[in-house]
Formats: sequence, C-alpha cells, structure tokens
Amino acid sequence: MTPPEPNPISASPSTSTSGMAQDILHRVVIVGGGFGGLNAALGLKSAMREKRCSVTLIDRTNHTLFQPLLYQVATAALDDTTIAVPLRSMLARTPGAYVLMATVRGIDRDRRRVLLEDGDPVPFDTLILATGAVYSWFGHDDWVERAPALKSAADAVALRDRLLLAFERAEREPDPAARRRLLTFVVIGAGPTGVELAGAISELAHTTLKRDFRHIDPQHARIVLCDAGPRVLASFPEQLSAYAAKRLQAMGIELHLGAGVTALDATGVQAGDRRIDADCIFWAAGTQATPVARWLGVDGNKRGLVPVNPDCSLPGDASIFVIGDASALNDEKGKPLPGLGSVAKQQGAHVARVISGRLAGRPASRPFRYKDWGQLAMIGGSSAVADFGWIRLTGRVAWFVWSAVHLMLLISTRNRLVTYIQWVAAWLTYARGARIITGEPGPRA
Amino acid sequence: MTPPEPNPISASPSTSTSGMAQDILHRVVIVGGGFGGLNAALGLKSAMREKRCSVTLIDRTNHTLFQPLLYQVATAALDDTTIAVPLRSMLARTPGAYVLMATVRGIDRDRRRVLLEDGDPVPFDTLILATGAVYSWFGHDDWVERAPALKSAADAVALRDRLLLAFERAEREPDPAARRRLLTFVVIGAGPTGVELAGAISELAHTTLKRDFRHIDPQHARIVLCDAGPRVLASFPEQLSAYAAKRLQAMGIELHLGAGVTALDATGVQAGDRRIDADCIFWAAGTQATPVARWLGVDGNKRGLVPVNPDCSLPGDASIFVIGDASALNDEKGKPLPGLGSVAKQQGAHVARVISGRLAGRPASRPFRYKDWGQLAMIGGSSAVADFGWIRLTGRVAWFVWSAVHLMLLISTRNRLVTYIQWVAAWLTYARGARIITGEPGPRA
Repeated sequence: MTPPEPNPISASPSTSTSGMAQDILHRVVIVGGGFGGLNAALGLKSAMREKRCSVTLIDRTNHTLFQPLLYQVATAALDDTTIAVPLRSMLARTPGAYVLMATVRGIDRDRRRVLLEDGDPVPFDTLILATGAVYSWFGHDDWVERAPALKSAADAVALRDRLLLAFERAEREPDPAARRRLLTFVVIGAGPTGVELAGAISELAHTTLKRDFRHIDPQHARIVLCDAGPRVLASFPEQLSAYAAKRLQAMGIELHLGAGVTALDATGVQAGDRRIDADCIFWAAGTQATPVARWLGVDGNKRGLVPVNPDCSLPGDASIFVIGDASALNDEKGKPLPGLGSVAKQQGAHVARVISGRLAGRPASRPFRYKDWGQLAMIGGSSAVADFGWIRLTGRVAWFVWSAVHLMLLISTRNRLVTYIQWVAAWLTYARGARIITGEPGPRA
Repeated sequence: MTPPEPNPISASPSTSTSGMAQDILHRVVIVGGGFGGLNAALGLKSAMREKRCSVTLIDRTNHTLFQPLLYQVATAALDDTTIAVPLRSMLARTPGAYVLMATVRGIDRDRRRVLLEDGDPVPFDTLILATGAVYSWFGHDDWVERAPALKSAADAVALRDRLLLAFERAEREPDPAARRRLLTFVVIGAGPTGVELAGAISELAHTTLKRDFRHIDPQHARIVLCDAGPRVLASFPEQLSAYAAKRLQAMGIELHLGAGVTALDATGVQAGDRRIDADCIFWAAGTQATPVARWLGVDGNKRGLVPVNPDCSLPGDASIFVIGDASALNDEKGKPLPGLGSVAKQQGAHVARVISGRLAGRPASRPFRYKDWGQLAMIGGSSAVADFGWIRLTGRVAWFVWSAVHLMLLISTRNRLVTYIQWVAAWLTYARGARIITGEPGPRA
C-alpha cells in the first residue's frame, strides 16, 4: 500500500496535507456539529473558498442529528441513520474545512487552544462554541439510569429497545401486578419532546402493537405524562396547550400536571401526591447548558448558559462566540431567546457572516436578530399544534404542516424520501417500520 | 388501567387468552425465526385457521433478518431495520400463532418440552428445529473478539462502527505504521459473505470516503481477502471464481488464497506464510450447526449437523423435524444440500405441508426435493456473478439480476422501497446513507 502522506502533528488542523498554506490562514474552530455549529461551518464556506480561513469542526460523534425527529427513532417509526448525516460528507468538498471526531474537555484561553480528552490541543484564532444543552436530572444522578433521556442516536435506539422489550416481558409475565408495571410508561416533562414521546408511545401501544400479543393487550398500556408546571406545551399559547391536553387525553394518555417528581426508584416514580408504579420511565424535563461557562471561566446564568453580546460574542473577547442552547441572549423586547433549533441555526449563520465580514476587513458587526418562524409540536393521532404568531393551527392541518416542515428541514434528499415512505406506510398501515430490538439477542437482551 | 386477562402459566402457549380451546389443539413448536422457521410457520397458517394446530415460534430476537443483505448494513449502505421484520407482525392476524422471544437451552424429548434459558418449558406435539448455523472460529475462542463475524443486526451495527472508527482514528494517528495498520482491513473467508464484505469495504474506502479526510487518503486503504482454499467463491463454477478474483483485484483487493489463518493477535493476523498487520479483521470463514444435535442427544455429522430422513424428520421420531443449516440431507444424486437460505425456505414450506397433511389425516409424507434456483454473489463495483445452471452471468448483467432478486426477496413493500432508494442514491452519488457511528459518543466510542 502507498502510505498516506506523513502527519507530524495528528490532531492539529493547522498542518494539513496541504502543509504550509494552512499556517497562514485564520483558524476558525467550531465545537459542536448540531444546528448551530454546522450552520456556522456552512456559512463560512465562501470564506474558506476565498482562502481567508480554515474551519475545524469538532464533535463527539461523526454525524449531525436532526433532533426534532429523535422521538420517532425511539418509538420505532424511523431508524437512526435516516435522521443523521455524516459531518464529513457535508464539508468534504470544501478545501480548508476539517472535521475532527473528538471530545472537548476544556479551553485554554491564554494559549488560545481547545483541549481534547484524547489528542493534541487544537489552536484557534476564532472560536465558536455550539455545544448545545444536556438534560439535567436536577442533581439526582441516580435517576439518570432509571429515567433515560433522548439526546443521541444511541439514546434513541436504547430507548426503543427498552420500550419494545417491556411488551415482550409483559407478554411472559405471570404476575398481574408486575405485568401492569411493565405496561405502564411514564414520561416526565410535558414540553414538545415529552408530548411527542407520550403521543408516539400511545400510537405504538394502541394501534401498531394492537394485534401482536396473545397474553397481554397493548391497548391496556397505561401512559402517564407528568409535569411540574400547570399545563402541557407551556411555551405555546394557553389555547393550544388546552387543545393538546384534550387530544392527549383522547388518546388515552393520563395527564398529571402541577406534579413535580420527588422520588424515582426501581419500581416507579413519585410525582406530586401520586405514586406511579412503572418499569419504563423517560425523562424529557429540564435541560441545562454544557460546561461551556466553566471552560471559559465565566459566570453562567442560573441555568448555566453563557450571557453573550448582541452579536453572540463573549463579553471581553470578540474572537469567541457562544451560540444556540449554550448561550443566553435576549431579543429586542428583552425576552430571552427560546432554546430552539431555529435560534441556533440562525445564530450559526449570523456568526459566520460576522466572521466573514471581519476577515474581509468589514469589522462592524451587526447584532443578532431572531426571525421567529413560530413553533410546532406533534401530538399524535394525526393531530398537532402550530403557532405562527399571525395564525394558530390545530388538528389535521397542523399535523400536515408539521410533517411538511420537518420533511423540508431534513438534510439530504435520500433522508427525505426514506422518511416520507416510512410516514406514508405508517399512516396507511399503522405499522412502524423500525420495530426491531437490536440489543444483543437473548430473553433479557 | 383495565388489567389484561390473567395468565397463570406465562410462557406456555397451551394457555392463551382463548383458554381451553387451545389445549385440545395439536401444538407445533418452531425454534428459530429465520428463513426455515418463518416459512414453516407461514406454511401452517391454513392449518391454524382450520383450528387443526397452534404454532409457537421461538426466537432469541423479535425479528426475522434478511441475512443476505447484512453485509450492506455492516458497510453503511443500509440500516439494520430495513432488512429486519418483526416476527409478531407477520403472524399477528393468524389465530393460534404465538411468537415467543426467548433463548432455548435444550429439549426434553421424554416429556416433549422445549427448555428455555428463562421461563417455563414449552410443551410440543410436533417440533421443528430451524436454528441455523453459527460461525466457528475453529476452536479459537480468543479470536472471536478480534475477528468478529456477521450474524445478527447487532453484529452488523458493531462492525459498521468499527469500520468507520478505523478511518476516524487513522485521520488522527501521527505514527505512520499505526496509521497503516488502522487502514488495513482483513476479511477471512472468501465465500459469498467474505467476497461481498471485501467488495463493499473497497467501495466504501475507495469511492464513498474518497474526499472525507484530510490527513489520510482512504483510497490507500489496504483490503486483504484470505482463504484456506485455492479459490474465491468455491461453491461456484471455476470460471465464475476466476472472474470474481479478477474483478476483486481490479477493485484493489489483495487476494491471499491457499492461506489458512494460523495466528490472530491484537496487531494482526498470520495467514499461511504471510503476516498482515491490521486493526480490523472480519471473520467470514467456517460455520457450524447450533447445538441441536446435543439438544436431541443424537450424533451430528462432522460439522455438527443433524442427519435427517428424506422428509426432514428425525430418524426414529417422526414428530421432530430439523431443517435448514442445522440439518444434513443429501439431494437425489446423493450430494449434500448447500447451506443456502433457499434450501431452508423450501424445507420450511415442505415440513409445513407434511404436518398439515398429517393433521388432515394424510400421513403419507413425500421426501423433500430441492428446487435449485441457482446462486448469486455480489462482488461490488457494479459487478456480480450468477450461476443458474443453464446459464452463467457476470458483470453488470449479474449485478442487475442480483439487485432485482434481492429486492424481490425482501419482506415488506416498505423495506423494498427504502432499499431501492438507498441503492439508487448510492449508485448515483456513491454515498452510503448509513455512515453513522452509533456507539456511545466519545473519541474511542
């Protein structure tokens, strides 16, 4: 085999195969390949083509994940590869773009380097932190295992296995009480993710699996949606929350609101005044920022988010940007921007413009303005809610809009086609194509 | 929640929700939900509808897997859920059909029960054993970890992760020797699976990933296909083996034939007189029968297969059948039947007919006759080989036939459509849709 060209400093992008050329380029490093980080990288393409900068995109995984559809992977409607796209493939044809699969452990601000768990530090001239949010179990680390959340492709597949295995075990469980516990599913947190997850579990149990078993009736599965707050989809207008609540109950989902979780053990959960025996408990409650504030040595707000300047740069260091769920920024009205993918996406594009401007000698940087396209949430049973500000939609219309918008936002035509087929097939047959338990074979897989 | 009807004996099919009715039915138990077992179950549908028997299909997983395409999951062309179908969904609408996800540990012939690792024994009146074959590392248990094989969906995804991570690590590896080892892929066994795997790895490295990296050139990846025998695809006519060998070499694959593996360690493999340093070693060599012979207390042949009567029943016990890769049967000419899915499929249908006949009072059982449709093997680079006896095909024609036949054989229209889209997209763009590393995030995921 002809050996690849030598690579003296492995992880450092400043020494690429194209050698010296790189060293004189302005080095932009992006941490996080989600909506924000990826769009920042794509926004810098022309600057890279014009040889004004190199971009190194660092992520723990090799792909960008379309998180809004993650719950559909967890409930066997889609497979994980359909909502993920390899980061490398998106930047493969852009010279000066590097993808580094690595885990960041900190930032050395004095020496301007990103520190990795494994491998040499990555030097930067401009840094974009787009590390997003992680779920927070309110300090109860012992709850993490018992009530897993949905963040990565691996999470979704593990959750799917757990969900499907619960029915398999119930089918073989002689003790009625244990069987009832196996067939009780609790979702903690009634935001969009929690609502979508509960709705999809209901569809799975009440329609997809209806005829699959002989000793249990999946239609008797109990699905409980808990939230500490007084209503579901709290970020939506009251009227839409009320509609969603009505629809969820019509789908046989028990709503348990104004009930914070106080205890969580091997056999169930204590939510407010109620004890719910359940084997499958899923976490869709609080999130917090990744340790970006600690990395930067700045004070985060109470949720750990990093307050930034109107142009998303770090106060006191214009060459560091924090975007998306890791950052805290208010809109013109002084209202905090929501933790939505669309905000992260627009901020990524914004900082790309700011940086490109600087590299082209146009240092004046405009403040970030969020273009609010509104928000959508799927409920299930062919209904959803949509709030576009100027108009609010519910039911089938909103469901159709939700589907169209999410198909449109998916990356790559193939993923759109595959998703479309899966959805149409599911809509026609109630079947869910990905009803596969992939954990190692065995009765307790 | 309304509790499901009580279920005194959990795992026993003889007590279903329909109660007494079942107890008087003839109980057919099938072990294994592959080509053979599934087709036996489907073949007994009318007997079940006529209330002549109940069928319990036992499998360690919850799905039937289309093994011929498993190598495409391992090489990121398809996702695992696309080639798998839930067993329950295939028998959901057939009264008297039960699916039991459990691992069998033995058979109690005297008391006519199947013993499970976990759960109560399953009594049978007629038993069909379709447990297939497992890979054999020639007694080198220490090789299993180092050179994994491809049998389950979990295997395929693990192999895909390993393959893709090798390139990611090579990209970051400063030491040229280590990098070369990371970019060397050894496939042991040049049967159809080995050839298809080697060919797909070559396509992945030489076309799909061509532009993805900056410090390595995936086109320099070294792919070695080893076999103890003198030629690739030994089960095919010499002429087709020769063609396949030529094509594989044209794809940059090193053939190392007549070279049995004598050593396998952390840094490479010793095949014949050659030492190959490699990180990724994949096993596609010998298979052996699952422990069916031991379960039955009979003598298997030298490969552990159970010799059966011409009608696939066990000598001395007409109520037990062994089919597919677990059984040893000769064709009319006295030649052993090959270990092909088509043989298992036809044997499954055959024993279903025999059993249905007996239940209908037509005990005379015809011997099994294998209808040989020929064999196909994909090479890659738009070429394959096909041997239909009356005609032999190579190149694009065989490639097209291979694709059409495999699409046709896939279960469920959705899977056909999704596979078709993935193939067309790959053919148009060289992209492989499932290039996702799903192992837990992290540099050494």
